[in-house]
Amino acid sequence: MGRYEKVFFCGVSNSDDLKVVLNYDIGGVLLYPSVFEDPSEFAEIMCNLEGKKLLVSTDHEGGQLEILPFIPQSPGNLLFGQTNPDFVFKYCNLSGKFMKELGINMIFAPVLDLKFPETNPVIGYRSYGSDPKKVSEFGLSAINGYKAAGLLSCAKHFPGHGRTRQDSHQEIAVVDIDREELDKDLYPFRIAVQNGVDSIMMAHVIYSKIDEKPASISRRFIDSMLRNELQYDGLIISDAVEMKSLSRHYSPEDILVDFFSSRGDMLIISRPRTLRIYVEMLHKLIKNGKLEKTFLAESMQRIEKISPAIEDSYGFIRHAIEEAVEFHIEQLRSEQAVLVLPDLTFYSEADVSERYLEFFKKQAKRFLKAKIIPFSGINSVSGNVLIIDLLIDASDKEIVAHRKLSENFETVHIITRNPFLKTYFCDRNYIVTYSLSPIVMGYVFKKISRFLKGGV
Amino acid sequence: MGRYEKVFFCGVSNSDDLKVVLNYDIGGVLLYPSVFEDPSEFAEIMCNLEGKKLLVSTDHEGGQLEILPFIPQSPGNLLFGQTNPDFVFKYCNLSGKFMKELGINMIFAPVLDLKFPETNPVIGYRSYGSDPKKVSEFGLSAINGYKAAGLLSCAKHFPGHGRTRQDSHQEIAVVDIDREELDKDLYPFRIAVQNGVDSIMMAHVIYSKIDEKPASISRRFIDSMLRNELQYDGLIISDAVEMKSLSRHYSPEDILVDFFSSRGDMLIISRPRTLRIYVEMLHKLIKNGKLEKTFLAESMQRIEKISPAIEDSYGFIRHAIEEAVEFHIEQLRSEQAVLVLPDLTFYSEADVSERYLEFFKKQAKRFLKAKIIPFSGINSVSGNVLIIDLLIDASDKEIVAHRKLSENFETVHIITRNPFLKTYFCDRNYIVTYSLSPIVMGYVFKKISRFLKGGV
Repeated sequence: MGRYEKVFFCGVSNSDDLKVVLNYDIGGVLLYPSVFEDPSEFAEIMCNLEGKKLLVSTDHEGGQLEILPFIPQSPGNLLFGQTNPDFVFKYCNLSGKFMKELGINMIFAPVLDLKFPETNPVIGYRSYGSDPKKVSEFGLSAINGYKAAGLLSCAKHFPGHGRTRQDSHQEIAVVDIDREELDKDLYPFRIAVQNGVDSIMMAHVIYSKIDEKPASISRRFIDSMLRNELQYDGLIISDAVEMKSLSRHYSPEDILVDFFSSRGDMLIISRPRTLRIYVEMLHKLIKNGKLEKTFLAESMQRIEKISPAIEDSYGFIRHAIEEAVEFHIEQLRSEQAVLVLPDLTFYSEADVSERYLEFFKKQAKRFLKAKIIPFSGINSVSGNVLIIDLLIDASDKEIVAHRKLSENFETVHIITRNPFLKTYFCDRNYIVTYSLSPIVMGYVFKKISRFLKGGV
Repeated sequence: MGRYEKVFFCGVSNSDDLKVVLNYDIGGVLLYPSVFEDPSEFAEIMCNLEGKKLLVSTDHEGGQLEILPFIPQSPGNLLFGQTNPDFVFKYCNLSGKFMKELGINMIFAPVLDLKFPETNPVIGYRSYGSDPKKVSEFGLSAINGYKAAGLLSCAKHFPGHGRTRQDSHQEIAVVDIDREELDKDLYPFRIAVQNGVDSIMMAHVIYSKIDEKPASISRRFIDSMLRNELQYDGLIISDAVEMKSLSRHYSPEDILVDFFSSRGDMLIISRPRTLRIYVEMLHKLIKNGKLEKTFLAESMQRIEKISPAIEDSYGFIRHAIEEAVEFHIEQLRSEQAVLVLPDLTFYSEADVSERYLEFFKKQAKRFLKAKIIPFSGINSVSGNVLIIDLLIDASDKEIVAHRKLSENFETVHIITRNPFLKTYFCDRNYIVTYSLSPIVMGYVFKKISRFLKGGV
C-alpha cells in the first residue's frame, strides 16, 4: 500500500510502453489498438503481464469503438437498442469470453449515455438509445454478459455524456441542464449501481448549473451524487486525464487533489510519460499534506479487492517461442542490417506464408530499421552491414550461394521452416525459427537488434 | 438416408455458395478464408446454418495455414514440436473455443505428417517434426485440446504426406517407400486411432510400392490398412476431390466407386459446381448398381452419429440486424446505383467509423456494383441512376441539400447513427440502419440491390 501507485490506470501502445509502466506499481493497464496490430508485440505484452495482480482493460465496446481484431464485429449499441436485451447479453458474453481467454480481465463498457438529437458524434452509435429505461435494460444485459464471461465491466460516462455538443477528447464539454433533467441521464447508472456494477467511469463534462468543475473531478458528482445519493461503493475511474476537456484548465495537482479527495479511485493516464508526472506529483502531494492518505487508502482497498491475478493468457505462446527458437549468434560488429529475402518461393494453396512475408518485412523495418532486398539484389549492397539471410526452402545449389555471403559480409542466417538446413550453417551465425509466422519473426528481429553494435 | 447426399462435404466461399450447397442434403460445409473477410457475409452464413445438423469445419491449423482473423496467431506446429505438448493443448483449446463460440464444430487438424528433408514445402512448418513418437504426442495434445473445447478434430493426411516432393494440390504426388518404412508415418495415426480421434483425412498420395492408386481412393489403404489393420471405425474423409493429384487421372465415377466401396465416408468437394456433378453421378451409380447402397448406409450412420446440431452461433447478430434496420423503400425504377458519401465527417478518437467507411465502399461495389462519389461531386452524375444518399451527422442546412437530391434523381436516404434525422425524410425512400458498421452496411446494400430494376 506504501506508494499508492495502484490508483493509476495507464495506457499501453507497445511492449516498450509496458516496460516503462511496470516500473511503477500501477493498478491497471489499458491496451490500445496498436498492441493488437503486431502479434509478436501482443504476445510479449501478455507474457509480461503474467502472474501480476492487475486490471487489464480495453475499450472494445463493439460498434463505433472496436479494438481487438479477434472479436467479430458488432452492429453497435444503437442498433442493439432497437432489438432485445438478449442479443446484447450474447454479444457481450461472446466478446467477453474471447477477451478473458486472451488474458484481458476488464472492459471499459457498457456505454450508458443517452442518445440526443444534434449532439456531438463522439457518442454516435455507442448509445443504446434515448429512453433511460431502455438504456438501463440493455446496459444491464451487457454487464451480465461480461460478468458471465468472467470480465469486470465499467459503466460510462457518469453522469452522462449524451447531451454534449463537444467531444471531450478535443475541447471543453459543457451541458447546461438542471438537476431534475439530469435524472434521466442518471437513471441507467442508478440501475447499474443497484445491480452491483464493478466500476463506473467519470465523464470530463461540465454540468454548469450544478458545478463549475468537470464531473470527473467534482466533489458534487463523485462524493455527493455517486457515493452518497446513489450509494455506490464500487470502483470509480476517471476518463483519461490527457483529454482536453479536463487538461486544458486543470493541472495534474488540481486533478489529483480534486479527484481523490472527492473519493474517486483510479485515474486513467493515456501515456507513460504522463504517468511519471502524475506519480511524482502524487508523492509530493502526500508528502506536503495536500492530499490525505485516508482517501488513497480507501481507494487502494477497493482496487485490491477487485483486481484478479492474471493466470492464463495468450502469453503462453511467447514461452513456447522462447523455448523453441535457437540463437547461435555472437555480438555483431555491424551497426546496420539488411534483410535478404529469397527471390522466388513456392507457396502452396495450403499456405498463408506469402501474406505473412509481407507483414514481417514491416517488422524488420520496425524492430531492426533494416533495409530489405531480394537475394538477387545482393550486389547492390556495400559497406559494413549485417546481412540477415532468410532461408525458406533453399536447394543444394542455393545453399552454396548463401554460404558465400559471409565472404563479403557479416552474416546471420535465419533457417525457417526447413530445420534440416542447419547442418550447412553451423559454422556461421545462425538462427533456427521453425516458423515463418510474424509472431515468431518479430521476436527474432527484435532479438537480433540487441546484438547489433550500439543496438537499434 | 434416402439420397445419401450427406456423404459430401462442400467448400463455401460466400453466402451465394451456401445457398447452392444447402439445396442438397449435404453432411458438411468447409468455410474458406473469404467467408471471414466480410463480416456481413460471415454473419449471414452462420445465420443460415442455424438449427441444421451439419458439420461446419475450417482448415485453421495455426501457423502456415490460418483462416479466421479471430484467432490469435500460432507460431505453427514445427515450432511447437520443439517445446512441450502442453503448449499445443493450450493453443488448440483456445482456438477451438473461439471457433466453437462462432458456430464452427469441426476442424481439419491436427496435421500428423512427419517432416522430412528436401520435401515439398506444402507441409512446411505444418508438421510437428520428424520423430513419429513426438508427432504422435503433440498430435494427441491437439486432439485433446480441441475436444475439451467441444470441437471435432480430423487427423491428416493418412497415411502421411511428409515425404512427397510434390504438392498434391498441383500435381501427382508419389512416394516409393516400402511398407516397413511407412510404419514410421503410420505411427501417429495409430496412436490417434487408439485414442478415438473423430475423423481421419486421406491423402491424395500414391505409395507406388503398395498401390497404384492414390491412398485416398485405395482399398488397400482405406479398408485393409485403416479399417482392418488399425481397427478404425470413425469417420474417414477424403482430401478435396478437385486436387490435381487425384482429379488428373480419375473421374468422378472412379472416385465415388473406389472411395465408398473402400469404406470411406465423406468426400470433400471444393466448389458447389463440382458438388452438383458428384451428386448426380452418385445417384446414377446407385441406380445402375455400380455402387452398393450398403457402403453408403454404413457411412451415413457414421455421419449421423458424429454430427452435432448447430445451436449457438454468431448468426444471432444477423437476427438482431434484421430486427433493427428499417426499410421504407419501394420497387425502384433505376438499374444502376451511385453511393453518395458525406464530404467531411467528424470522427472522434473514440471512433473506428473512418476505417469502416473505407470497408463499406468496397461492399457497395461488391453488392450493388455502385459508383461512389462525394456529396460535392453530385453535379457530375447524370442519367437514370439511383442516388443512395448516406447521412452520417448532417446539419440542418445540409438536410435541405440532401432533400433536394430527389428533385433530379430517384433517391434512397440512408440514416445511420443519427436516427432523429428520419423525420426529415419520411416522405422519401429511406432506410434507418442505427449503425455505420460494415456488418450492417453490407446487409443493407445487398438488400437495396434486390429493389433495383432487374436486380444486381
